Amino acid sequence: MARTDLQQHPERASLDPADVDAILAEALVCHVALIEEGQPFVLPTTFGRIGKWLYLHGSPQSRMVNTVASGAPISVSVSLLDGLVLATTAFSHSMNYRSLVVFGRGRVVDDPKEKRSALDAIVDHLIPGRREHLRPMTDKEVNATMVVAVPLDEVSVKIRSGPPGASAEWPVWTGVVPLSETAGSPVGDRPAPDHVVEFIRSRSNPNASAS
Amino acid sequence: MARTDLQQHPERASLDPADVDAILAEALVCHVALIEEGQPFVLPTTFGRIGKWLYLHGSPQSRMVNTVASGAPISVSVSLLDGLVLATTAFSHSMNYRSLVVFGRGRVVDDPKEKRSALDAIVDHLIPGRREHLRPMTDKEVNATMVVAVPLDEVSVKIRSGPPGASAEWPVWTGVVPLSETAGSPVGDRPAPDHVVEFIRSRSNPNASAS
Repeated sequence: MARTDLQQHPERASLDPADVDAILAEALVCHVALIEEGQPFVLPTTFGRIGKWLYLHGSPQSRMVNTVASGAPISVSVSLLDGLVLATTAFSHSMNYRSLVVFGRGRVVDDPKEKRSALDAIVDHLIPGRREHLRPMTDKEVNATMVVAVPLDEVSVKIRSGPPGASAEWPVWTGVVPLSETAGSPVGDRPAPDHVVEFIRSRSNPNASAS
Repeated sequence: MARTDLQQHPERASLDPADVDAILAEALVCHVALIEEGQPFVLPTTFGRIGKWLYLHGSPQSRMVNTVASGAPISVSVSLLDGLVLATTAFSHSMNYRSLVVFGRGRVVDDPKEKRSALDAIVDHLIPGRREHLRPMTDKEVNATMVVAVPLDEVSVKIRSGPPGASAEWPVWTGVVPLSETAGSPVGDRPAPDHVVEFIRSRSNPNASAS
């Protein structure tokens, strides 16, 4: 059994590269797992993606980027919560989600051109369209940042969607409560520019309830 | 240096137990990291919390719960995204977040009373007030589920909030775009009951933009 094979709910596996693209495009952060002196360690971090590479960054003193740079085995989870799935029994409750796990070994990004492209991709990923408005990165800033790349070669995707499956007859409401990571009104000292307004629109709740 | 000490941005550390309580109360899922044949492995899962214990559950065939049950070292990340922090330079961009990492070794929950309490806590955590409306769990269901407990003894908390720090002068809007995991309108075949409406209200975006 390959480590990307799903042990639980294999029917939720996806082999469609479009699902990988969509999950990576929508998620704002990933969770990186690595081993440090025999202890697994997991932490959230932002990322960028260019083609087959997932890029992470951090301080040159960061244990996360240094461990990834060392080529040690790591794992990265990217997950989106899409809803609560409410059935008649606790046992049949679930969540709708789209998630992937990457297995692999990273490498440090030393090439100056790739390093700048990776840092650009990380900013573009956070908020598209902003980068062109920023003061350009200085060499000092680039040198003060460590960038690592993780290959998207070995990726396992798991997706659940739709209503609850069959569960016991019981007089309780069943259905789905959609969830999404949404943006609120910008907090600044003047009206936000178009790229910020567009980010907020793209992260608005498509079916928000009146509250 | 203890493994719960922060290497990066130590000023973002929190030692306030109220922060641990708040993060665990608000997050719907955690990310569990473990080692399997030398490979770190990370995956998202729901959880419950009673006092000093974090409870996870899964199929008795799940590698995640079995590895936790074995008492092997694990790590659990619980993170909430609170906003994009937009500065004048890429280097000074950040996110507002509240996150914690638990280090420790879990144990299987065999005691029938604790096991049922843990499963109740997991359902209560997902959606408060629903459990009393569900068909009670059968012994068969309880036996078909494996529950593990992770002690909340060794926990590291990291929080960033507020506006961007000082960054270079540059003519671009700076500020914060709030983010939150929000619930949308319920999808079911009849109007949702009070506990579902209340969940949605509690997860509504406090400062949603008109979209």
